[in-house]
Amino acid sequence: MTILERHDTNGVAHLRMNAPDRLNALSDEMLAALSSQIDALSQDRSVRAVVLSGEGKAFCAGHDLKEMTAGRQAEDGGRAYFKDLFDRCSRVMMGLQALPQPVIAQVHGIATAAGCQLVATCDMAVAAHGTRFGVNGVNIGLFCSTPMVALSRNIPRKHALEMLTTGAFIDAEKAERLGLINYAVPGETLEATTAQLAEAVASKAGKVLKIGKAAFYGQAQMRVEDAYAYAGEVMVENMLFSETEAGIDAFLNKRTPKWDQ
Amino acid sequence: MTILERHDTNGVAHLRMNAPDRLNALSDEMLAALSSQIDALSQDRSVRAVVLSGEGKAFCAGHDLKEMTAGRQAEDGGRAYFKDLFDRCSRVMMGLQALPQPVIAQVHGIATAAGCQLVATCDMAVAAHGTRFGVNGVNIGLFCSTPMVALSRNIPRKHALEMLTTGAFIDAEKAERLGLINYAVPGETLEATTAQLAEAVASKAGKVLKIGKAAFYGQAQMRVEDAYAYAGEVMVENMLFSETEAGIDAFLNKRTPKWDQ
Amino acid sequence: MTILERHDTNGVAHLRMNAPDRLNALSDEMLAALSSQIDALSQDRSVRAVVLSGEGKAFCAGHDLKEMTAGRQAEDGGRAYFKDLFDRCSRVMMGLQALPQPVIAQVHGIATAAGCQLVATCDMAVAAHGTRFGVNGVNIGLFCSTPMVALSRNIPRKHALEMLTTGAFIDAEKAERLGLINYAVPGETLEATTAQLAEAVASKAGKVLKIGKAAFYGQAQMRVEDAYAYAGEVMVENMLFSETEAGIDAFLNKRTPKWDQ
Repeated sequence: MTILERHDTNGVAHLRMNAPDRLNALSDEMLAALSSQIDALSQDRSVRAVVLSGEGKAFCAGHDLKEMTAGRQAEDGGRAYFKDLFDRCSRVMMGLQALPQPVIAQVHGIATAAGCQLVATCDMAVAAHGTRFGVNGVNIGLFCSTPMVALSRNIPRKHALEMLTTGAFIDAEKAERLGLINYAVPGETLEATTAQLAEAVASKAGKVLKIGKAAFYGQAQMRVEDAYAYAGEVMVENMLFSETEAGIDAFLNKRTPKWDQ
Repeated sequence: MTILERHDTNGVAHLRMNAPDRLNALSDEMLAALSSQIDALSQDRSVRAVVLSGEGKAFCAGHDLKEMTAGRQAEDGGRAYFKDLFDRCSRVMMGLQALPQPVIAQVHGIATAAGCQLVATCDMAVAAHGTRFGVNGVNIGLFCSTPMVALSRNIPRKHALEMLTTGAFIDAEKAERLGLINYAVPGETLEATTAQLAEAVASKAGKVLKIGKAAFYGQAQMRVEDAYAYAGEVMVENMLFSETEAGIDAFLNKRTPKWDQ
Repeated sequence: MTILERHDTNGVAHLRMNAPDRLNALSDEMLAALSSQIDALSQDRSVRAVVLSGEGKAFCAGHDLKEMTAGRQAEDGGRAYFKDLFDRCSRVMMGLQALPQPVIAQVHGIATAAGCQLVATCDMAVAAHGTRFGVNGVNIGLFCSTPMVALSRNIPRKHALEMLTTGAFIDAEKAERLGLINYAVPGETLEATTAQLAEAVASKAGKVLKIGKAAFYGQAQMRVEDAYAYAGEVMVENMLFSETEAGIDAFLNKRTPKWDQ
C-alpha cells in the first residue's frame, strides 16, 4: 500500500491520496509522493488526463498539523522547516498546473485549507453533494495565505474574503455557483461524471492539450496585447502539427479525426 | 450585397455579417470588412453604440477552415499565412475594444471558436435561447488559443478550461450564468432586447462614452493604485467637458440633460 | 452630532455615515471624517472588524454634486479642486482596503456612483432587498471612472460595462449573483446578518487577520509564482506567532483556542 495510488485506464491517470486516517493530509510524505507523480506524468505521453481523488471520508483536510507542530522543536522554532514545507507545497500546486495534461479533482467529504487549494488549483473539479469547502485556518490562528493564491484566482473577491476571514465553510452547490468547481453532483454519480469529463479530455490529441493548457496559464498573466501576440504564435505552431492537419482534414471531409496520441 | 452590412439608426450602427452559407466564418474577406468598418466607426462621431449580428443560421462559426487548409500549399506549409491571419484577427478583436463606442453582440444559433471570441470581445452581449457557444477547436486538433484570451477575461477559470479542453458547448442560459453574455432571451425578443441596450447607450454623450470605455480597458490591466491615479485624471478631464457641466446642471435643476452628441 | 458616528462593541467598530438629508454624499466633510476614522482604526488593536453603514434612506449616493459644481467657480474652472477631490476619495477607498481589520458594508436603499464604489471596496457586503446599485454617472455626463476601478475587480466584465455605459441600476439579488455583495437579505434581518459576519471575524486573532488581509490584496496583483513566494513567507511569519502556536495546540487537543486579541 502506498500513500498515493495510481492506476491508468485509456489515457487517464487516476491518482488517489491514500491516508484516510489522517484525512489525506498533505504531510511531508504525501507531498513527496505527489511531487514524484507529477514528475512522472510530465514525461508520460500515454496519459492525456489526470483525475485526483482521496480515499476515505475526506478529499483532503490540508496540512498535517502534528508534523508542523513537531517542527517547532528545531532551534529556530521551525522557521526553516516551515519555509521548506510551504515551498514544497507551492511547487506541487504549480506543478499540477504545469503538467501537460488537464487535471480534474474528484472531491467528496472535506476539502479544507491546502485541500481546498488543491481543488482550486486543478484545471477542473467535480464534487459530491455534501462536500464542505473551507479555508478555515483563521479559526486556529493560521490564515490560509497560500491557499488563497489559488482560491482568489477561482472565485469572486468578496466570497474569497468571507471564507478566509470568517473561516466559514461552503457547500458543493455554492462552490459550483462561485466557480470553485465545475459540477456539484449526487455522491453516487461523482465518479461517473468525473470519468465523463476525463474521457472527453483524453479523446483529444495529447500534443494539442499540452500546448493549449500551457498557453492558458501563460496568457492569463499577460496584458491583453501581449496575450494575443503569444497566443497567435501558439496557434501558428499548433496549425503546423500533423495531428491538426489530419483533424481539420477529417472535419472538412466529415470524418471523425484519428490521431496518434 | 456586401459581406458586412451596415445601417445606422438614431446613433446606433448595426453591423451584420452576411455570409450565411459559410456560417459567417471569419474569412480573409470578412476580417477585411470588419477591419474597414472598425476604422470608419473609430472616426464617426454620429455613432454612439454598435450592434454586431450575423445573417442566417449562425452568429459566427469561427475561422474559415477551407481557406486555412488552402494556405498549407505555400512553400513554408502555411506558416507565414497563418501568422498573418491570426495577427489580422487579433487586430480586429482589439479594434472592437478600442472603438470609442460600446459594442453589443446580438447572438443566435452558433458562436464557436473565433465566433465565441467575438462574443467575449464585445462590451456586452445578448443571445437567443438555443444559441450554442463553444471553443471547440480542440476536437479537430486546433486548441482555441486566441479565443481563450477573450474568453478567460469573461468567465471563471474552471469553466473556461472545461470548454477549451473538452470542446463541449454551453447553452445561452449557462453563458448568462457564467458572465459570457448579459442576457439570454427568447429568440423573438432578441432584437428588441439588444435594441433597448443600444438605445440606452446611444442616449449618452458620445465624448463621455469614449473616455469611459477607454478608461475601463486601460485601468483593468493596472495595479489598483495606478488604476486610481489614472481613473482620477480621467474624471478630472471628464468634469471639464461642457457636456458634463450641462448634465450635472440639468440634474441639480431636475431637468433632463440635453447635449450635442 | 457628527457626520460619521462610531460606536464599538465587542471588537467591532460601527461607522455610520450620518448626512441623511444629502443621502450620505461623499462631501469634503464626509471624506475627511472617513479619512480620520481610517487613520484611527489603523492603529486601534482593540478593533478586529469594521461595519460601515448609512443613516436615513440611502447607504450613499456618491459625490456631492453641489460642492463639485461650486468648485467650478475657481479660476482654473475647478481642475485643481477636482484633482484634489478624486485623490482624497481614492485614498479613502485604498485606505479601507489597507486597514488591518476586515470591513463589511451594511447596505440599504441606494448605493450609487462612489457609493457603489464604497460597497465594491469593502471586503464584504450585505444588502437589504430593495437596495438599488448603480454607477450611473454616465446619465449626467460623468462616467464613473474611479468607481469602476473597484467595481471591475468585483463583478464580471460584461455586467460592469453594462452598468457603466447604460447607467442602469441592479437590485440586491442581482448584486449577490454577480459577486458585488455576499448576501441579499430582507431589510429586517440586515443588521443581524451583518453582525453575524462581523462577530465571526472579530472572534479571530487580530494579528492574524491583519497579516492575512494585507497578503490578500498584495498577492492579488502578482504573477502566480511571485504570489506563492510572497504568501509562503507570510505563512512562515504567521506560524511563528504565539497566537498561532496556541491556536494549533488547542485544536490538536480539542480545545477552543483562546488568544489575546
